[in-house]
Amino acid sequence: MSKETDIPELPKEITPQSQDFGRWYIDVVRRAELADYSPVKGCMVIRPYGYAIWELMQQGLDRRFKATGHVNAYFPLFIPQSLLMKEAEHVEGFAPQVAWVTRGGTEELEEPLVVRPTSETIIGPMYAKWIQSWRDLPILINQWANVVRWEKVTRLFLRTTEFLWQEGHTAHETAEEAQEETLRMLGVYKDFAENDLAMPVLDGRKTDSEKFAGAERTYSIEALMGDGRALQAGTSHNLGQNFAKVYDITFQGRDKSLQYIWGTSWGVTTRLIGAVVMVHGDEGGLILPPTIAPYQVVIVPIPRGNWRETVLPRAQAIRDELAGRGVRVMLDDRDSQTPGWKFNEWELRGVPLRLEIGPKDIEKSQVVLARRDTREKASAPMEGLAAHVERLLATIQRTLFDRALKFREEHTATADGYDEFKTIMDGRPGFVISPWCGSAACEAEIKAETQATIRNIPLDSPPADGKACLKCGAPATAHAWFAKAY
Amino acid sequence: MSKETDIPELPKEITPQSQDFGRWYIDVVRRAELADYSPVKGCMVIRPYGYAIWELMQQGLDRRFKATGHVNAYFPLFIPQSLLMKEAEHVEGFAPQVAWVTRGGTEELEEPLVVRPTSETIIGPMYAKWIQSWRDLPILINQWANVVRWEKVTRLFLRTTEFLWQEGHTAHETAEEAQEETLRMLGVYKDFAENDLAMPVLDGRKTDSEKFAGAERTYSIEALMGDGRALQAGTSHNLGQNFAKVYDITFQGRDKSLQYIWGTSWGVTTRLIGAVVMVHGDEGGLILPPTIAPYQVVIVPIPRGNWRETVLPRAQAIRDELAGRGVRVMLDDRDSQTPGWKFNEWELRGVPLRLEIGPKDIEKSQVVLARRDTREKASAPMEGLAAHVERLLATIQRTLFDRALKFREEHTATADGYDEFKTIMDGRPGFVISPWCGSAACEAEIKAETQATIRNIPLDSPPADGKACLKCGAPATAHAWFAKAY
Repeated sequence: MSKETDIPELPKEITPQSQDFGRWYIDVVRRAELADYSPVKGCMVIRPYGYAIWELMQQGLDRRFKATGHVNAYFPLFIPQSLLMKEAEHVEGFAPQVAWVTRGGTEELEEPLVVRPTSETIIGPMYAKWIQSWRDLPILINQWANVVRWEKVTRLFLRTTEFLWQEGHTAHETAEEAQEETLRMLGVYKDFAENDLAMPVLDGRKTDSEKFAGAERTYSIEALMGDGRALQAGTSHNLGQNFAKVYDITFQGRDKSLQYIWGTSWGVTTRLIGAVVMVHGDEGGLILPPTIAPYQVVIVPIPRGNWRETVLPRAQAIRDELAGRGVRVMLDDRDSQTPGWKFNEWELRGVPLRLEIGPKDIEKSQVVLARRDTREKASAPMEGLAAHVERLLATIQRTLFDRALKFREEHTATADGYDEFKTIMDGRPGFVISPWCGSAACEAEIKAETQATIRNIPLDSPPADGKACLKCGAPATAHAWFAKAY
Repeated sequence: MSKETDIPELPKEITPQSQDFGRWYIDVVRRAELADYSPVKGCMVIRPYGYAIWELMQQGLDRRFKATGHVNAYFPLFIPQSLLMKEAEHVEGFAPQVAWVTRGGTEELEEPLVVRPTSETIIGPMYAKWIQSWRDLPILINQWANVVRWEKVTRLFLRTTEFLWQEGHTAHETAEEAQEETLRMLGVYKDFAENDLAMPVLDGRKTDSEKFAGAERTYSIEALMGDGRALQAGTSHNLGQNFAKVYDITFQGRDKSLQYIWGTSWGVTTRLIGAVVMVHGDEGGLILPPTIAPYQVVIVPIPRGNWRETVLPRAQAIRDELAGRGVRVMLDDRDSQTPGWKFNEWELRGVPLRLEIGPKDIEKSQVVLARRDTREKASAPMEGLAAHVERLLATIQRTLFDRALKFREEHTATADGYDEFKTIMDGRPGFVISPWCGSAACEAEIKAETQATIRNIPLDSPPADGKACLKCGAPATAHAWFAKAY
């Protein structure tokens, strides 16, 4: 009855962030029980605490999708090889990294199936079937699903062979509507990232070499992690008529002519959980923004004297009042652990606010509140406690955003010349804003020489009129944001 | 630009239920846009209207799971061949019907992966890792996921190669707790089926030949469809220590000894959507219980005279008031369709209540309400309308349950002798309750001769003391419920 498994033991201690950010990240993810390795290479298990965060993210996104007129549906996991192979760029982008089903039950399949890496190629034929007239447009469908991309090097949440995501797929009557939708959903992502995840993001356009395989234009939101590397946190694609032409998605227009639809697709993934860890976390572990924290408040009773008769009922009453107001609260009344152990444990798990209550607090009709973000500890009167807690949670949410924004600003430099650019890129992490000529060659050379890639060209990036490309000196077309990225 | 696809066109008319129930079912599912065929053999697309029903089902179930202490998590889609093969009965049950991934990216896999048909074999090794002590128990985890079982003959929702489901997997300290959990979740399913789906079910124990591959005991809920055939609507398994022994899921007990955990698993699937169609539907199409209806009320304004100035604002106000009270309501103010067309369309889609409002109604300060279940039409005063609508929806929910229960009772017979049994089974659909000796041989012979299977032995089945098995005449051990089944 020995426990045989290839999965490494959970770390006892968390590697200091300052010592090895990458190791710190994995230690936090595993020790906080967000996710774990699995017996399948490259695939992870999302543990209940991590999945609870994902459920809160899903709610925040799904509410926004529905408020913008979208509905959910579900398309098959499998895509016949011939369907995947129809769109040339898409094939080139995805064929090398898909999983192939070649046997079903006891028979070899005549045509292999791929496990979806994304669903444009299975949704296309359905839209071709469903859409007849301009009256059927727009189609605004989202899907919550698992997808598989065969990865050689994986990292929990950030890059795994299987991951969870949502993928929106829309069809429109005109090019303008498709472009509006592409930017609308980019805006939804930015709003969600900044308000729910307290994570400031750059919303902008990807360069052609970084765009989605088969898209006309790709937009992204990009965030800066605590180690100064950037992370792509969501993408929104204007597909033009590319997939429409390949899958014959046509409609009779208002003028009775047969036309191709204009498409978009957009997605965010469970990678966002990793982003939250890396944007807000500290040496003590995870710090969760209250909006997506499974527990926003943990109540730790101090077990002195006859606390079960005096303290516990009061703690239970506070829990009930907070829960009644919609605060996600947990009362940790376990006998088996000391308060000190509990403080550590819930700090590690990033609970935004800890409420301590002991016999002395009862005497003074107060509690002690400890903020996870600032580690400030202060007493608060029992009178009006629930409202006070709600205000504090809002403050923590705002503080986390402000702190992350300040960090990004402190780690953003501008460089008009290449020497300056290289010095900055070499010397410290973060974004560097530089004028760029728009050529893929310059972009590739910069990447080869500095490992920095253009994350995107923000929608509000100032014009680069009269400036020269940092690399080749030709007239610049835009200010691009460069960074080393995950 | 011709539309080439293997997917048949949507039916224009629905086949009468009385003429061909199976054809009627498929026509309703496709015309009501619940689901459609896909380009992948045996896989379906769940369309937005069908998926909205699934989302409401998920909410009803998930709320009950969480109220009984369960949390959600997510385990990998893929299972290494060697892990699947460890539990002998499980292999025998599932190996012939799994999809095999043999290639990842550009490489042949050393060890093939199966796409999960159910997740005991991938969850087992994780539980072995996570569980150390009795203090870690119970583990009460549920997963919402897609699963794949290679099926030769498929039918939308009822049997497809890929389907969506939830699967609970729990680990307990004692055999008693595992049995309690098994029955608790069976009870949750019954409560959900009867209260949310308005679908009466038999909750009982499966025979050994029908139990889950690897379980000690399987329980099910069974419902009777409109054609008199039974449908298994959910299962709950007591796994004993079978998987624990195979995957080494051990814990240190209160007495310090190393023990195997006791397991359960339980699941329901998107098949429930098919069940709702077949339990409640009629010649006009779908009839949805209000609790799971995406739209509980559809408002159809009657476009006479200057209705846009007079009727429409009133219709909008009613919509807003109902929506404000949490009623799911849609105002169908499309110009392109006549009221008659809309009546038909929303009846087909099973909307429980239609609210008609025209210029004459405005004059009389009333509306017309048409119930989908009874097709009764009556006017109702504008005054107190929202409360009246809510009461009517509750009445419809109850009426649907009562009607389905009455149908089941009318289609349930008892037969102590085999000749009588065969006559009833041959002559009319429904359940037949008969004494049975408990032998698999009798069960198999009855199935071969009559196509009827034992659906289950209900928990409240009266004892069969002194009775003889309908087949072999040996002493009966229980009253079993037989039916032809989906």
